[in-house]
Parts: sequence; structure tokens; C-alpha cells
Amino acid sequence: MEIKMSQRSNPDFQSEFLAKILSANVTPGLVTFAGGNPNSESFPVEALRTAADAVLKENGVTALQYNSTQGYLPLREYIAREYRKDGLNIDPSEIIITNGSQQAIDLFSHIMIDEGDCILVEDPTYLAALQIFHLYNPKIVPVELGADGVDPAQLQAAIEKHNPRFMYMIPTFQNPTGLSYSAESREKLAAIIRGSNMLLLEDNPYGRLYFYEEAEKSFSHYLGEQCVMLGTFSKTISPGMRIGWIVCRQKAILERMLNCKAATDLHTNIFAQMVLTRFLQDHSLEEHIAGNRVLYRHNAELMISCIEKYFPEGCKTTRPRGGMFLWVTLPDGLKGVEVQARTVQRGVAVCAGDPFFSERREVPHLRLNFSNYTDEIIENSMRIVGEVIAELLSEKRANINTAHGPKGEEK
Amino acid sequence: MEIKMSQRSNPDFQSEFLAKILSANVTPGLVTFAGGNPNSESFPVEALRTAADAVLKENGVTALQYNSTQGYLPLREYIAREYRKDGLNIDPSEIIITNGSQQAIDLFSHIMIDEGDCILVEDPTYLAALQIFHLYNPKIVPVELGADGVDPAQLQAAIEKHNPRFMYMIPTFQNPTGLSYSAESREKLAAIIRGSNMLLLEDNPYGRLYFYEEAEKSFSHYLGEQCVMLGTFSKTISPGMRIGWIVCRQKAILERMLNCKAATDLHTNIFAQMVLTRFLQDHSLEEHIAGNRVLYRHNAELMISCIEKYFPEGCKTTRPRGGMFLWVTLPDGLKGVEVQARTVQRGVAVCAGDPFFSERREVPHLRLNFSNYTDEIIENSMRIVGEVIAELLSEKRANINTAHGPKGEEK
Repeated sequence: MEIKMSQRSNPDFQSEFLAKILSANVTPGLVTFAGGNPNSESFPVEALRTAADAVLKENGVTALQYNSTQGYLPLREYIAREYRKDGLNIDPSEIIITNGSQQAIDLFSHIMIDEGDCILVEDPTYLAALQIFHLYNPKIVPVELGADGVDPAQLQAAIEKHNPRFMYMIPTFQNPTGLSYSAESREKLAAIIRGSNMLLLEDNPYGRLYFYEEAEKSFSHYLGEQCVMLGTFSKTISPGMRIGWIVCRQKAILERMLNCKAATDLHTNIFAQMVLTRFLQDHSLEEHIAGNRVLYRHNAELMISCIEKYFPEGCKTTRPRGGMFLWVTLPDGLKGVEVQARTVQRGVAVCAGDPFFSERREVPHLRLNFSNYTDEIIENSMRIVGEVIAELLSEKRANINTAHGPKGEEK
Repeated sequence: MEIKMSQRSNPDFQSEFLAKILSANVTPGLVTFAGGNPNSESFPVEALRTAADAVLKENGVTALQYNSTQGYLPLREYIAREYRKDGLNIDPSEIIITNGSQQAIDLFSHIMIDEGDCILVEDPTYLAALQIFHLYNPKIVPVELGADGVDPAQLQAAIEKHNPRFMYMIPTFQNPTGLSYSAESREKLAAIIRGSNMLLLEDNPYGRLYFYEEAEKSFSHYLGEQCVMLGTFSKTISPGMRIGWIVCRQKAILERMLNCKAATDLHTNIFAQMVLTRFLQDHSLEEHIAGNRVLYRHNAELMISCIEKYFPEGCKTTRPRGGMFLWVTLPDGLKGVEVQARTVQRGVAVCAGDPFFSERREVPHLRLNFSNYTDEIIENSMRIVGEVIAELLSEKRANINTAHGPKGEEK
């Protein structure tokens, strides 16, 4: 019997890469900076236990029966109020609750992309967003990300050349780089986008995890309904609950997404939505996050100082002002995949930069997650990664010397 | 600004129909037999409350952190053991936990259907399955469903003519008809399928809700790994939790689905998976379902006797031996949509048969859900539906008499 699967679902580079990383992650004893888990010590386990008990005691039948595709109204009301605090006049009817913001990216992609349509992404960008986009076979055009956002001239040119459907962007504490767009950069880029026919899909999982000053404002302030916003409780409360959302102020698009969500899984688990809502009603999210901010800032600063101390000259790192990741650029044409392969042998997993690029491969980058582990483990692991980079560098130099040495030997 | 959405996501007939039904459903005071909700009185609220408390007390961090795409291993082990009781040697590694079996249909469709590929469905079939299939633009070929399963000659001809990727089938207490395939029918149909290159996607949400004797065996007994099985806890424990599964014994297909699930929502909410698993470990699902069986059987028998009592001559109904639905055939060319439109005005929602057919419209059928409501409400509502059908019939006869009467008037 011969089974043919769909062309559309052929595994892409990102998925294959991720499968390798994940299999490394389940190796016992491995310390991993390759993933993106929030620190589990920050989970409000006891408060959620109280909330779950109250929900089932007071509203058990509602929590267990089918519910609306759009999501639990009190939760949408909470989210809308949070946006209003930031000066955005969002109505609960403009929000859909999804299985993490991951599903929201998928729903949006589904209703926006026909095969061959163009979309824009930051270069580099979130690898799982690339995985989703690949499922719909668009033409993915990367726009180079600098220290202060994507390059305006490249963006303008890409819009003119490709007439894209939308651009996916993580302007705040970006994944994988940890970089953030300044207010000036946002204003300038928004002016370019405003003149186009594309939507901006703004992802913002890390915005509340700032270390120093508050994050810059959403592009919605500049673009209004041309900006579709994603959000999640995965990095602030619990990823295991799988509760995220999408805000879309264009009714036709929102309804198309609701239609798609209804078909694909009816609705997001209402029990978890109600437990989370109860937690948010009885506690201050702001107070809960405050602890995370201190912890993540401490870890980020420690990791940066370890990189300066242990990594060989020529290594550079971003200095995130929030979020969960930093981005290392390696010296002298070293490849991230080489470093990744060798640190694993020494008990430390890091993530090479490759899967975050839609096209570029064997890039000289590593993404490091700093939200987990103690000071001691971070310091010890960074020492090991530094040693591995130094080893690879000296091997490379030895090879070069051999190849180009006085004897001029060839293979 | 001009926004173009994808062709693929254009709303289909089923979605538009469903939206109308759902808006009718939120009308205050309306009694509805149009949906498919399990009776909420059967929800094990207290037991799940105890389970949720234990999970967060003993394993809170695991319940709130990211988890595996495939699903919680103890839950997959439980499901595998249940299949083994039925004589099917299923390994936990062959199961993926999904957001209800609805998401499993979507994952399977995604990896199997390229635009224009052919799939087979029962005629009629589950309307939300049709909604999903439409998202992938296949050629949907309906195979007529009779009292004992789909027509073997039609199935054979459809396979030969269209070389379908798969057939979607609900052979036990089918939705919308309540019909079940006999063992003989299964064996005969399996022999036809075995000679083809298509998979059977067997959906089985209602199999455990039998009223009299146990349901017939899965097609897996006849087809082995050519049969992919869907399951859910939505009708036996809680639909709001959104926990279903797919069993696929072909590794290449399973891995492709895992890849797709990882991209679209990472994993199913682990908190709900763990709570459900704890409930299943501490309680007998069999005992829990026993109460449902008694209730649903009582309601089904009552509804059938009310139909016989109150519906005009010429109406027919199926006599389900399990599940949640029965299927009424109307007399004399009456249309289900006419009945649906008028009963709503009298406070009773029923579901016309139209959205369960991929192509046929204005069919003389109604689907009635019998799992909810008291005896009194069922009896009173069926009386109203019967009156409406009688009214429409007499209006139709009056029109015919006028149109073909001695005067022979024309518009």
C-alpha cells in the first residue's frame, strides 16, 4: 500500500533543526540554554491551585461544557483593560483567545496566505513562526534586523517589490536577538508601513519582562487597525496552560479567523481560561511579574559578564533590556552549529542561529536563553562554551596555517 | 487600504449555516436540540476538583511548564490500555493528544490533502469535519449512508474513479444519523478498503455511549494500520477541557502530524491533560459512563415515542442504539430548513440536515440531539415540532391545491 502525504506538509529546515534540539534537550544531565522556557520557580502554583478550586466549586459546569470560539468574555475584558492602561482603546469583541499566541500566528497565516503570496519577516526571527509560515507556502522575504529595528530602506524596497500580505515582527526584546526597536525607529517604520497595503502582525510575548525602563509602545499607536497584535500568558504566568490571544480591529479579518478557529478546534480549553481569569481577578499580574523582572535581569547581567570574562576576543553579544534571550556573534567565521555540536558533548546545550533565518545557514550566531539556572550553573556553563569557542578557533587557525604554510600541502 | 484574505479561507456553506445556528442558540429562553452538548449533569465536577487540587499540589511545576507535543505519557498509556482491552495492540508512542478530536481531524487533513486531492465522506456526515476539509480544498466525494453503513458498490466505484487519499467515517452511533454499521457491513467494507491505496479515518466519539449491547469493533480489527483512529473525552467526561487523540500506526504519518502540531500550537494544555489523567487513575471511567448510558437511552426512547405520538404521518426517525442524535426524515418533500426556521419562532431550535451533506441542499431531514433536557421539556418541544411540521404540510397542500386547482392560476 502506497500512502502519499501532502506536499504542503513536507518538513522544513526549522522543524528538522528543532527536532534535533529537542532530542538533545531530553538527554539526562544536560544543562540547556537552547530552549525558551520561563523559569518555573516563578509559577504561581499555589495561587492557581486556589483559583482552580474556586472555579470548579462555583462554576464547575461552565468550566467543563463547550464554550464560545472567541474565548471567555471576562478574560477578554481583562486583556482589553490592560491595553487601555497602555492607551489603546481595545474592545473585548476585538480579541480571540487562542492556544498560546502560536495558534494565533497559525490562524492569521491561514486566512491571509495563499500559496506564493509574499510575507515579510525580520532576519533573524522566531523559528516557530517560520515553521508556521512554511505550512502555507508563501514567499518569505527577510528584512535585515539591526540594533534599532529592521532596516527602513530594505523594508521600503521589499514592500515596493513584493506587495506583501503582512510583516511579522517582534519589536520588543526580540526572539532570538533580545533587541528592541526605539520609539524613533517605530515611528519611521510605521510611516513606511502606513503607505502600504500590508498589515503588521506584532508579536509581543516579552514586553512586560523589561529590566530597566518600560518597553516602547506598540505599533498600534502609530498604525491603528493596520496593526494586529499578539499576546500570551506563557511567559508571565504559565506556558503549559496554552493561553494566548490575538487583537484584530478589522471585523472581516476577525470573523474569518473565528471561522477558522471554530473549524480547527472549536475553542480554547475553557477550564484553563477560567482558572487564569480567576487568578488575574484575585492577584496583581504586575506584582507577580515584578519578581521575574528582577530574576531575569540578574541572570542576563550575569550571563553577559560571564561572556565578557570567558569567551575569546572577537565574540560579541547583544545587551537585552528585557525578555529571555541574548544573541552572540562569533569571531572569525566560526559557525554556530559547530559550537552547538561540541558544547553538547560537554554537557551544555546552546542553540545555533541557523533556524532563526529563513534562508541563511551556517551563520556565526548563538541564541542563549538566560531565564533558568542558578548563578553557579550559568557561570560554569559559560566557561565551558567559552572554552569550546576558543578550541574551535585555534583548530581553525591551525588548519589555516597548515593549508597555507610554507610546505603548501594540499589534500 | 485594501486587504486581501486567502482564497483558501473563504467561508463555506457549513460555516455560514453553523453561525446561524449558534446565534439562535444564544437566544434567551430558547430550548435547543440543534447542538451536540453532552448533558452537563453528568460532569464529574467534584472528582475533577479533587484531581486538579492533587495535580497542582504534587506536580504543579510540570502542570504549568511547556510539555511535549505528543502529549502527557501517562494519559497516552491509559488510552493505549483501553484499546488493548478491546483487543487492539496500540502503543502509547502511536498516540498524539490533541485539542479535542476536532484538532486531530485538522492535523490529519493538513498532512494528507493537497488542493484538488480526493477524499470520501459518508453522506451525510459530521458538519464540522466538512468545515475542516473545506479549509484544504479537496474534492469531497460523498458516499451514500444507508441503515447499515455506506453503500459498498458506491464505495468501490468512488475508490476506482477518484483514487482518494482517505475516507472519513463515523461507523458507530453516527453523527448526524445515529446509525451504526453492523459487523457484517464492516467486514465487507473493510475488504473493499483493503484493496485500495486510501486510509480510513475512523472517528468514534460516541462508541462508549451504547444503550443496549456494546458497540461493534473498530475497523482497525479488519484494516490494521490502514485505519487511523480518533477518540475524545468530550462526550464521556468534559468537552470544555478539549482533550482528544489520534492513533496512527504508520510512523511517517505520525511524525508529520507531530511536526504540524508543534508548529501550530506546540502542545495541548498539559494542566488539563494531567487533571484528566488523575481523574482516570482514581476513578472508573466505565462506572462514570454507566450513568450517561441510562440517561441518554431514556431520553432517546422518550424522544422517539414523542415523535411517533406528535409528528404527522409520513415522518420517519432512526432508532439509535447509542450516541446523542437521531435523524428525522420529513414527509412529502418538506424541507428541514423550513421546519428549523419556524420552530425557532416557537422557542424550539432544531438542526436542518443541510450542513451535514457536502452537496445536497434543502434536504427533508432534521437532526435532533437528545442528551439534554427533562422529560417534560422533551415532550413539550416535540409536540411543538410536530405541530410545525403539520402546519407546513397543510400549507404546502393548500398551495398545491391552489396552484393546480380548477382555476389553474399562475403568478
